[in-house]
Amino acid sequence: MAKDKKKKIMRPKAIPPKGFRDYFGTDVAERNLMLTQITEVYHRYGFDALESPAVETVEALGKFLPDVDRPNEGVFSWQDDDDAWMALRYDLTAPLARVYSQFRNDLPSPYRRYAMGPVWRNEKPGPGRYRQFYQCDADTVGAPSVAADAEICSMLSDTLEAVGIPRGDYLVRVNNRKVLNGVLEATGVSDDFKRANVLRTIDKFDKVGIEGVSQLLGAGRLDASGAYIDGVELSEMQIAPVLAFLTSKGTNASATISNLRTAVGNSEIGLQGISELEMIGELMEAGGYGSDRVEIDPSVVRGLAYYTGPVYEAELTFEILNEKGQRRQFGSVSGGGRYDDLVKRFTGQEVPATGVSIGVDRLLAALREKGRMLYKLRGPVVVTVMDRDRLADYQQMVSELRNAGIRAEMYMGNPKNFGNQLKYADKRGCPVAVIEGGDEKASGIVQIKDLALGARLSSQIETTEEWKSQPAQMEIKRTDLVDEVKKMIARSEGSM
Amino acid sequence: MAKDKKKKIMRPKAIPPKGFRDYFGTDVAERNLMLTQITEVYHRYGFDALESPAVETVEALGKFLPDVDRPNEGVFSWQDDDDAWMALRYDLTAPLARVYSQFRNDLPSPYRRYAMGPVWRNEKPGPGRYRQFYQCDADTVGAPSVAADAEICSMLSDTLEAVGIPRGDYLVRVNNRKVLNGVLEATGVSDDFKRANVLRTIDKFDKVGIEGVSQLLGAGRLDASGAYIDGVELSEMQIAPVLAFLTSKGTNASATISNLRTAVGNSEIGLQGISELEMIGELMEAGGYGSDRVEIDPSVVRGLAYYTGPVYEAELTFEILNEKGQRRQFGSVSGGGRYDDLVKRFTGQEVPATGVSIGVDRLLAALREKGRMLYKLRGPVVVTVMDRDRLADYQQMVSELRNAGIRAEMYMGNPKNFGNQLKYADKRGCPVAVIEGGDEKASGIVQIKDLALGARLSSQIETTEEWKSQPAQMEIKRTDLVDEVKKMIARSEGSM
Repeated sequence: MAKDKKKKIMRPKAIPPKGFRDYFGTDVAERNLMLTQITEVYHRYGFDALESPAVETVEALGKFLPDVDRPNEGVFSWQDDDDAWMALRYDLTAPLARVYSQFRNDLPSPYRRYAMGPVWRNEKPGPGRYRQFYQCDADTVGAPSVAADAEICSMLSDTLEAVGIPRGDYLVRVNNRKVLNGVLEATGVSDDFKRANVLRTIDKFDKVGIEGVSQLLGAGRLDASGAYIDGVELSEMQIAPVLAFLTSKGTNASATISNLRTAVGNSEIGLQGISELEMIGELMEAGGYGSDRVEIDPSVVRGLAYYTGPVYEAELTFEILNEKGQRRQFGSVSGGGRYDDLVKRFTGQEVPATGVSIGVDRLLAALREKGRMLYKLRGPVVVTVMDRDRLADYQQMVSELRNAGIRAEMYMGNPKNFGNQLKYADKRGCPVAVIEGGDEKASGIVQIKDLALGARLSSQIETTEEWKSQPAQMEIKRTDLVDEVKKMIARSEGSM
Repeated sequence: MAKDKKKKIMRPKAIPPKGFRDYFGTDVAERNLMLTQITEVYHRYGFDALESPAVETVEALGKFLPDVDRPNEGVFSWQDDDDAWMALRYDLTAPLARVYSQFRNDLPSPYRRYAMGPVWRNEKPGPGRYRQFYQCDADTVGAPSVAADAEICSMLSDTLEAVGIPRGDYLVRVNNRKVLNGVLEATGVSDDFKRANVLRTIDKFDKVGIEGVSQLLGAGRLDASGAYIDGVELSEMQIAPVLAFLTSKGTNASATISNLRTAVGNSEIGLQGISELEMIGELMEAGGYGSDRVEIDPSVVRGLAYYTGPVYEAELTFEILNEKGQRRQFGSVSGGGRYDDLVKRFTGQEVPATGVSIGVDRLLAALREKGRMLYKLRGPVVVTVMDRDRLADYQQMVSELRNAGIRAEMYMGNPKNFGNQLKYADKRGCPVAVIEGGDEKASGIVQIKDLALGARLSSQIETTEEWKSQPAQMEIKRTDLVDEVKKMIARSEGSM
């Protein structure tokens, strides 16, 4: 070994970059199933597919990254050969704005598209928080009426039920950014930067409560860790209407609307926002979507500065245990709203648009948490190799099974240790093993083994003889292979 | 306008980075359909899904980029916050090697996985040549026997037929790198660099013919553009066996094998390669895959240096017209082979592996070229807006249609110009438009319009009155909406 020194090169580490992970078998199948279910609803609602590339120019992506103040912070970016900066998309909305601007003369108007796929965030990863995750979006570009927003709310409701969240376990909550703007107008907060800070503060309502929001809108507060968080420095006169707005949810829609009217006073934009909310309520009702599915909730503001009108989010209302073992609501799995300015960046023309994004991985986590992901990945029928000189015989069996539509394979590892073949079948969740030794071949028979039945014992079995003594094993005619395997799979599925 | 100078900011260009493109509606649906068809076959063959992230460490990706001599050339890479280099995956094999090495103690052995998704190449884009494209791979890691290679060949055959390439329009060609190594051994070419050059030269056989290969193996040749291409500088004694190998394809498998025996002489590795090819032939025959689907072809070498045994590719044999209007064979849509060294980079242990990659976008292009993509994207039923004060009425109709499983939407643009609503329906390929004016509402009726019938004329119609006079329009009871729309869609589909 000593003389092999020059071969002692550093080996690469077999790990993905931090914050990235792999998905295996069932996880992939479950996500694909969910993406299919979601896009089936989007399609039924009239949206067409769009797939834009993972990479965009930094210029086209712009400064719209959510929850980040500085431009280009939070994206993975690099320079192309010609020095142009390119980046991985951080969401599916910024690429839509680029695509719509580029192809607006050829696309139908309004343009209704759905998109699904991974997005990337250059953020600090944490438990359950990855730097690549799936989104599934639907947007209508060129739709001035809030009918388009109302439609998204009912679509969200239908989508959640389609993926397996029963009515009562979710709520789509809708609000209108214009109402808050009306409140701020009425109280004389006109500075854009200050308004953005108010938005961000209100967004913390869930976490810090009404008292916390009140302090953060004023001088600031000590947070749980003892650090002092600076406030937005509104006066008490300015804070009161914001809090009134935030707590204006009534026992029903019309009570809420009435409370909101008080909060906005005479602000024109505020009153317009309220009448849009009324319209959304009316349309939801016409479509049969009652307050058990969709409700007006003034505490929904969504952090993104680019929303200009209705905003909405879908929340799962059942409780789960968090990392500390405390019961808490699962929370938001989807959000969106109206953004009339995104396309304007490119074209100079204001184009009304509205849309929604579903966080697919979070929704999957919720379904798993509730034991509602019922996808069962079944392993293949394994044709074992008893005699390595007769691979052709085994291959022929596998082909017959596959041609009959049965998932099947010949054992591809080293066949020497028969126990390993059975351990393999066990690990794969194989329903049936096929065994044909030399004697069986000569007699025109094969053994088939119900592995679901035998799984419990299989790890203790060492020899072929022991294996054959298991009661779940049957001797069949070689010519009946396909039929008998089919029957055994059906029995095994029935008994599960 | 002049005083608006400060608003004259540079607008971002609405284009994707060069070499990237968008896919709309039908294109996306067709590709998803193909991915589903391919993975259905992979699944039936016993492979499980794996989805690794788009991003890997540069270290883990290594220097395996096909057809590129320099490390990291050809990938999109950048530095993470902690200065570690990361990059977009350029294929699905390098990530598999990383995943297998990382999880080898938990994965079944052999590990059989399929993967699908985009890969990225930092290469000069060209016509039809993009920097992001789809691959769909299947690999078996930990399978020493060429039975695993044979299986891939039959799977390739089944897959091509599953996506719509009829038997006779494709051929899976298989060869063994060991045979060529045997030929080189027999002729005394032992230098690795020289061997790699020989490989690359042989790979040009399709383009330059036997005479061209002969020149390139020797002193070099003038290419069509007049440039002189340096040769590999083999002697004539060394070139002759290589050419013999390259042209050893006989009229049937046993003739080919016999010719190959002559070419490798006494080389042990060469003889081993030949016996592996014989085994593959035997297994193909046992599975019922005749020479109309899979054949041994010594001219298949695959450029990649990492292949160590059997190599295979799937070729479409029908002719298409190229850019210059010349007839040529469509060529390769898939390739793969055995690579026993990829995992060793990480673990130090040699792990036998074999697998295949299908170039999904190229295969889609082939099917479109032959008019075999029959996917028809049908637009939604459009409920037009005749009276903007009655959006709730229209929304209710849309909800009824959707709840009955019918793809439907309310027109979401500005409803003022009714002609625009019809143009929109036309552009979307909508089968039916629903029209309800105030009079109809009062009488409890609606108009439904067969747009497939009316499409021809619709672009010339300007007024509602003209539209109503079209023969494809029917007056129905409002309560019969769902049933009548269903019937009209069925009629329209039947007449297409």
